[in-house]
Amino acid sequence: MAPPSSRLVVPIDLKKKPWEQKYPLHNRWHPRIPAVAEVTEGELFRVEMMGWSGGSIADNDSAMDIKSVDFNIGHYLSGPIRVLDKEGVPAKPGDLLAVEICNLGPLPGDEWGYTATYDRENGGGFLTDHFPNAIKAIWYFEGIYAYSPHIPGVRFPGLNHPGLVEKGPSSLKICEVVHQRPLANLPTKKSCLLGLINEGTSEWEKVAIEAARTVPGRENGGNCDIKNLSTGSKIYLPVFVEGANLSAGDMHFSQGDGEISLCGGIEMSGFLELKCEIIRGGMKEYLTPMGPTELHVNPIFEIGPVEPRFSEWLVFEGISVDESGRQHFMDATVAYKRAALNAIDYLSKFGYSKEQAYLLLSCCPCEGRLSGIVDVPNAVATIAIPTAIFDQDIRPKSGRVPVGPRVVKKLPDVLRCSYDGDLPITQNLSKDKED
Amino acid sequence: MAPPSSRLVVPIDLKKKPWEQKYPLHNRWHPRIPAVAEVTEGELFRVEMMGWSGGSIADNDSAMDIKSVDFNIGHYLSGPIRVLDKEGVPAKPGDLLAVEICNLGPLPGDEWGYTATYDRENGGGFLTDHFPNAIKAIWYFEGIYAYSPHIPGVRFPGLNHPGLVEKGPSSLKICEVVHQRPLANLPTKKSCLLGLINEGTSEWEKVAIEAARTVPGRENGGNCDIKNLSTGSKIYLPVFVEGANLSAGDMHFSQGDGEISLCGGIEMSGFLELKCEIIRGGMKEYLTPMGPTELHVNPIFEIGPVEPRFSEWLVFEGISVDESGRQHFMDATVAYKRAALNAIDYLSKFGYSKEQAYLLLSCCPCEGRLSGIVDVPNAVATIAIPTAIFDQDIRPKSGRVPVGPRVVKKLPDVLRCSYDGDLPITQNLSKDKED
Amino acid sequence: MAPPSSRLVVPIDLKKKPWEQKYPLHNRWHPRIPAVAEVTEGELFRVEMMGWSGGSIADNDSAMDIKSVDFNIGHYLSGPIRVLDKEGVPAKPGDLLAVEICNLGPLPGDEWGYTATYDRENGGGFLTDHFPNAIKAIWYFEGIYAYSPHIPGVRFPGLNHPGLVEKGPSSLKICEVVHQRPLANLPTKKSCLLGLINEGTSEWEKVAIEAARTVPGRENGGNCDIKNLSTGSKIYLPVFVEGANLSAGDMHFSQGDGEISLCGGIEMSGFLELKCEIIRGGMKEYLTPMGPTELHVNPIFEIGPVEPRFSEWLVFEGISVDESGRQHFMDATVAYKRAALNAIDYLSKFGYSKEQAYLLLSCCPCEGRLSGIVDVPNAVATIAIPTAIFDQDIRPKSGRVPVGPRVVKKLPDVLRCSYDGDLPITQNLSKDKED
Amino acid sequence: MAPPSSRLVVPIDLKKKPWEQKYPLHNRWHPRIPAVAEVTEGELFRVEMMGWSGGSIADNDSAMDIKSVDFNIGHYLSGPIRVLDKEGVPAKPGDLLAVEICNLGPLPGDEWGYTATYDRENGGGFLTDHFPNAIKAIWYFEGIYAYSPHIPGVRFPGLNHPGLVEKGPSSLKICEVVHQRPLANLPTKKSCLLGLINEGTSEWEKVAIEAARTVPGRENGGNCDIKNLSTGSKIYLPVFVEGANLSAGDMHFSQGDGEISLCGGIEMSGFLELKCEIIRGGMKEYLTPMGPTELHVNPIFEIGPVEPRFSEWLVFEGISVDESGRQHFMDATVAYKRAALNAIDYLSKFGYSKEQAYLLLSCCPCEGRLSGIVDVPNAVATIAIPTAIFDQDIRPKSGRVPVGPRVVKKLPDVLRCSYDGDLPITQNLSKDKED
Repeated sequence: MAPPSSRLVVPIDLKKKPWEQKYPLHNRWHPRIPAVAEVTEGELFRVEMMGWSGGSIADNDSAMDIKSVDFNIGHYLSGPIRVLDKEGVPAKPGDLLAVEICNLGPLPGDEWGYTATYDRENGGGFLTDHFPNAIKAIWYFEGIYAYSPHIPGVRFPGLNHPGLVEKGPSSLKICEVVHQRPLANLPTKKSCLLGLINEGTSEWEKVAIEAARTVPGRENGGNCDIKNLSTGSKIYLPVFVEGANLSAGDMHFSQGDGEISLCGGIEMSGFLELKCEIIRGGMKEYLTPMGPTELHVNPIFEIGPVEPRFSEWLVFEGISVDESGRQHFMDATVAYKRAALNAIDYLSKFGYSKEQAYLLLSCCPCEGRLSGIVDVPNAVATIAIPTAIFDQDIRPKSGRVPVGPRVVKKLPDVLRCSYDGDLPITQNLSKDKED
Repeated sequence: MAPPSSRLVVPIDLKKKPWEQKYPLHNRWHPRIPAVAEVTEGELFRVEMMGWSGGSIADNDSAMDIKSVDFNIGHYLSGPIRVLDKEGVPAKPGDLLAVEICNLGPLPGDEWGYTATYDRENGGGFLTDHFPNAIKAIWYFEGIYAYSPHIPGVRFPGLNHPGLVEKGPSSLKICEVVHQRPLANLPTKKSCLLGLINEGTSEWEKVAIEAARTVPGRENGGNCDIKNLSTGSKIYLPVFVEGANLSAGDMHFSQGDGEISLCGGIEMSGFLELKCEIIRGGMKEYLTPMGPTELHVNPIFEIGPVEPRFSEWLVFEGISVDESGRQHFMDATVAYKRAALNAIDYLSKFGYSKEQAYLLLSCCPCEGRLSGIVDVPNAVATIAIPTAIFDQDIRPKSGRVPVGPRVVKKLPDVLRCSYDGDLPITQNLSKDKED
Repeated sequence: MAPPSSRLVVPIDLKKKPWEQKYPLHNRWHPRIPAVAEVTEGELFRVEMMGWSGGSIADNDSAMDIKSVDFNIGHYLSGPIRVLDKEGVPAKPGDLLAVEICNLGPLPGDEWGYTATYDRENGGGFLTDHFPNAIKAIWYFEGIYAYSPHIPGVRFPGLNHPGLVEKGPSSLKICEVVHQRPLANLPTKKSCLLGLINEGTSEWEKVAIEAARTVPGRENGGNCDIKNLSTGSKIYLPVFVEGANLSAGDMHFSQGDGEISLCGGIEMSGFLELKCEIIRGGMKEYLTPMGPTELHVNPIFEIGPVEPRFSEWLVFEGISVDESGRQHFMDATVAYKRAALNAIDYLSKFGYSKEQAYLLLSCCPCEGRLSGIVDVPNAVATIAIPTAIFDQDIRPKSGRVPVGPRVVKKLPDVLRCSYDGDLPITQNLSKDKED
Repeated sequence: MAPPSSRLVVPIDLKKKPWEQKYPLHNRWHPRIPAVAEVTEGELFRVEMMGWSGGSIADNDSAMDIKSVDFNIGHYLSGPIRVLDKEGVPAKPGDLLAVEICNLGPLPGDEWGYTATYDRENGGGFLTDHFPNAIKAIWYFEGIYAYSPHIPGVRFPGLNHPGLVEKGPSSLKICEVVHQRPLANLPTKKSCLLGLINEGTSEWEKVAIEAARTVPGRENGGNCDIKNLSTGSKIYLPVFVEGANLSAGDMHFSQGDGEISLCGGIEMSGFLELKCEIIRGGMKEYLTPMGPTELHVNPIFEIGPVEPRFSEWLVFEGISVDESGRQHFMDATVAYKRAALNAIDYLSKFGYSKEQAYLLLSCCPCEGRLSGIVDVPNAVATIAIPTAIFDQDIRPKSGRVPVGPRVVKKLPDVLRCSYDGDLPITQNLSKDKED
């Protein structure tokens, strides 16, 4: 008869460091990282999480913390959590784990976040050739709404979501696969945190050099940064290890499709209220590996029913011809870059600095679409911005005030650092890394 | 006092060929193709259009017409239409032309369409390495709904839209630019149709070897295949030539984001009811070229208010690791391919053939998103399918009927041809063309 | 293989009178009015309809036609249409007839409509005590949009729907029932039109004095004026006579919940594309009579998927205390009247005349809700107006232009007639009639 | 720089009674009830509230607490809260107070609620003639979702909202007005609680016999029970007393339009996070009294952006003819009653008891519309139920499982008490009270 509040299985104390938490966090994937909690199918449980950086980026007046951040620390995750069925039998490899996000939000008393982009020499962002220096904007939350002292003139309801909800990788096999990929974020012991495995032990040494990094989206879920994994959605995750070993982190108050500035949602601490169901044998029933190993499967999810509702959208197109005029055959990445650049430039006609527009597109509820992916040689991508988030009508108009644009400089501007790197010519980030 | 019905400025007689129409169609872009009609700012006018192939693909029991189609014929467009302001002054280069799509639909008496993919040796589609042979499905329309005798078990409301709404290119300059691109569809006199310029004249010879092809999305609009350019939407097109020279064609009853099978919407004939507004000097006011010439700008549009409403979506993810396990750095095209393959495979668990699922994803109102474009090295793309279009619940479930899947073979299947080409190994289409 | 366009079963020639049509119209309900057409379950068919008044109200510069209209003429309906199953067996009493509205719209070439309210001595409207004189506004259609020269500053997408879709009444029994009701619109031979039954015959005389009027919503469907019975919706109608005898008419381009001005949608001619399914024995399976006879059942319907989408709404409340301060115990009708009066008054602060606001609320896509119906003694009703239909921001604001209201007189105003009746004190319409 | 969490201005301790709280609650309206807190325009503040009954109705296995509840206790409200502008000047009569609901929800640790209807002799509900006995269903919350052990087979996202958000009445004048109404809930000292005015004082005696009851919706806001006053919405309240004296209570996790069972939302404790803006002189600017005194104005509100999204609705109609066949001229209350009865009966065909269906319609997110309010003599009302809340397809179908209804008795049923009253004939509730 007692009402079933959610059971808090992973608490966070924001005054402590990631490694000082009751259940120390981890920032790598490895099947030997032990579970810190156990939950039963059907049970509502609560997981609390620090922001991805574990407190390294603060609510202050400077972007220096972004400029100098150690990229190897991320993402600090809560878990792993072991999932059992009602008879106490753990989830098993080959099952699907249906995880329903019943609720989520910022941690009480910590209702703020930030959007930033890294220095070009330290990771950059999607448009780093245009925005090579570290910049940052703080956001404050008023219930479902966010506003920023650094990007005046906009306010919008959040579509809170975790950047990462992931199952433990199956075994060394997944690590092997992902490490063989030439472009992967390769393992490094630098800043490695492994939960209940204490640094200095031989176990730590063994695991640290093998453990997968958390940055990329992967077969087991990973850093998908899918903004619609929000309240009420349900994720079907393939299970690779006994118990499933669920972890989560990298909470966002809001994010645009693509998360273009990279540190790019409204990054925050937060909580999740989750409920799991084990679909026995579900991997075989519903999924087929699309690649050389059994690991080449991907999660599926259902979108939840309470996403913010917008009815008017202004949409910007991009085609796969880059800023130098060079054509990239059916390259949707280049097309989306162009769409984003077009949108940023357009917003700058309404009083926003380009840096403000860049961070805004990264974190507001805009939609990025693969509109045309077959009309050779040009892929077409679009970015759609809900017009209701602005305090003025941003549509093109023949006249000006009150029907047309009010160009009022939006001050103060974002926090920014100087760019001290070596940038002889503007280059394509992807290309850079590939060469 | 008389009610202003739309004025029919370009009629189509479906019994005639594209070159026999009252205002002969054109299938190339060139500034010297003369306007066939004139409209005034604010006036509601109607344009009728043949399907992209001008009648080459028919409502029959075979996919042979798809297999053997001459790719150079497309897209047969209606227009160009010259736009004047209320004082009779034409739109001028540097203006923005706001084109509102007040209504659109199939031509009365021609309420059918088809979705197809080409033979791999004749253009293929996004997934041609998996589906190398020509296939086709016919769709019939029941008012706002479409159903296919070849893909039983689905029915959905259309989001009709023109694949192409385009302004005339400014001058030879745009042609020069696009031709310099190494991967462009280069000009060819083969199957070239130039509207009022008669074949055999010296003008025809001059223009035909210069005129741009209609396949790709371009700066002046072009084959964007953006499914949301539907009823009630408003497009802001940069004007490159005096009079704007608006053309349109390639009508779709419905399309999924990406139009993945390439011939890939529900292709139909149709009409548009349009209304134009000239925003004088709007290019300078609102757009900044993003490239080496003044032509590197893209259209903007607003989404209309009557898109079909779906509340439940099942979403499939893909990351930029291809089917061989090879990783492609931040390649959203590969990621979307994987998402589409995952979705097709999943639907095949519910009784659909993979060919049925491929054509369905290409033409149903599914959404393709650039979800994560910064988490190196893996781009994440998603494809979201509205579950209400199926006659069964397609979500993963623990049990079976009545809560879980009913696997009933969906017969009859799509129309298909044999693949007679040379396909020693499965290859990436894009790669193929680039090498 | 031939594509199945809809079959036109009831054509309309707008140059002819209702009684001159190929299949003469009818404006009464009676089981002996013969069917004019036959359709088969599953078949897509098209019905054309005159406006409710059969052409009595015109697109002109005066409201005199409204003032002097003979109320007994309405509603001119097309049909009845007899429905058979695929074996040729007609629908039978006790079945449910599922009627899907696959498409609908104005008749081509007749793209206009009007909204009006009657003179208080000739029917009035919901707020006739406040608006006793006949007024009229003309609307023109631009595809999905309507605008009025008489109500400048608004434009909105229509939610086209038939005011009436009705099954034939079962027998004299339903006529008896409805006539026994003291407040019913009683039968009258005046202006009676009975389809294929010719005036002057003895059959006509017999039927005319029995036949039910079309004004009220009834058990068999009737003049429900439910604005959401629009494209893609599906109505489940109880069948009372063999063949079902489906009729339809009173097309609206748009309507607000309540249709408060009475002649109150955007009244137009139009067409319907319908598809029927017979659910044998469905009345018993799904419906239970709620009253003394088997006739006390009501239709059910599903809402279609393409209603115009609005995200911002301004909502006005009303409680069941009338303008004199008198309280009416839980009277939702009074509460809605107050909500409507509040909304009209509010809009008049933004430059609209109260007459403009009255007609606008009657025909724009506003929502009327029974918000609280139990908190004694005051019923609470609300009317929600989508803010996007206005060309200015109508929300309350601290400042004025550009953020607050622009009070610009909206001219020209509605067409209006003088009120010549006897109106000593403002009285409640309902009360008036009840006494 | 510190992030502005909401300031808790009215805390609740659920272990204490309403009169034991730090700021004792009140259950009457009177201008002399002193403010317990002060807030500043623009400040985000948090108000906590007990459920309307102050803990009298519990999460137990019996409906006895509903049967015997003292109706005079409700509604226990938190406040009043005095609102100042940034200069410290209080809101003044004649201003509008814009109150934004930035967030709301159940109190942490108290995530449950109930829906009930009273015994017919103790208040009943909208359909008390059909359901004369007290019944109750408990609901448990899983984040945004609610499910009930007493109504299996449904689960839905909540649209949390306060039943009451109200401004203090201006003076004795409003009390006078409302007391003159013959049908009002008249003042009574029984169970009266007056916040900081202690019982036994002469002030208490004076105020208690004058103070207005909280049950009805009123000019100052009151028990509107408008389900869309949810997260993100903004209410514009007329100010009648200096400081505005804002109170709130009667939190609902969810409610259907009309709240038909009377105790009828999912009743819960809860919190509100609010933000106020004072629009100086806004009453005159935006509102006109519609009645004999300045008090006859009503609040306005904007709907918030995160309401649960449903795309499929099944709709039931009702007309103003009651169950005995008697016609009520244009009576929307009777029409809505018939629509509700039709819906309840229909759901009973799918395995629900009528009591389950009654409580479900009262609390699920169904929409009640005043569809036609002018077609004499029958008002038409509709109730629309989102089909996605059920675990089976509830639409009428020709066949049965898996496409048609699964009739499985939904057990256990609601909690219920015997009806011991005197109910010789079924009567209309409203009529009952009026006589």
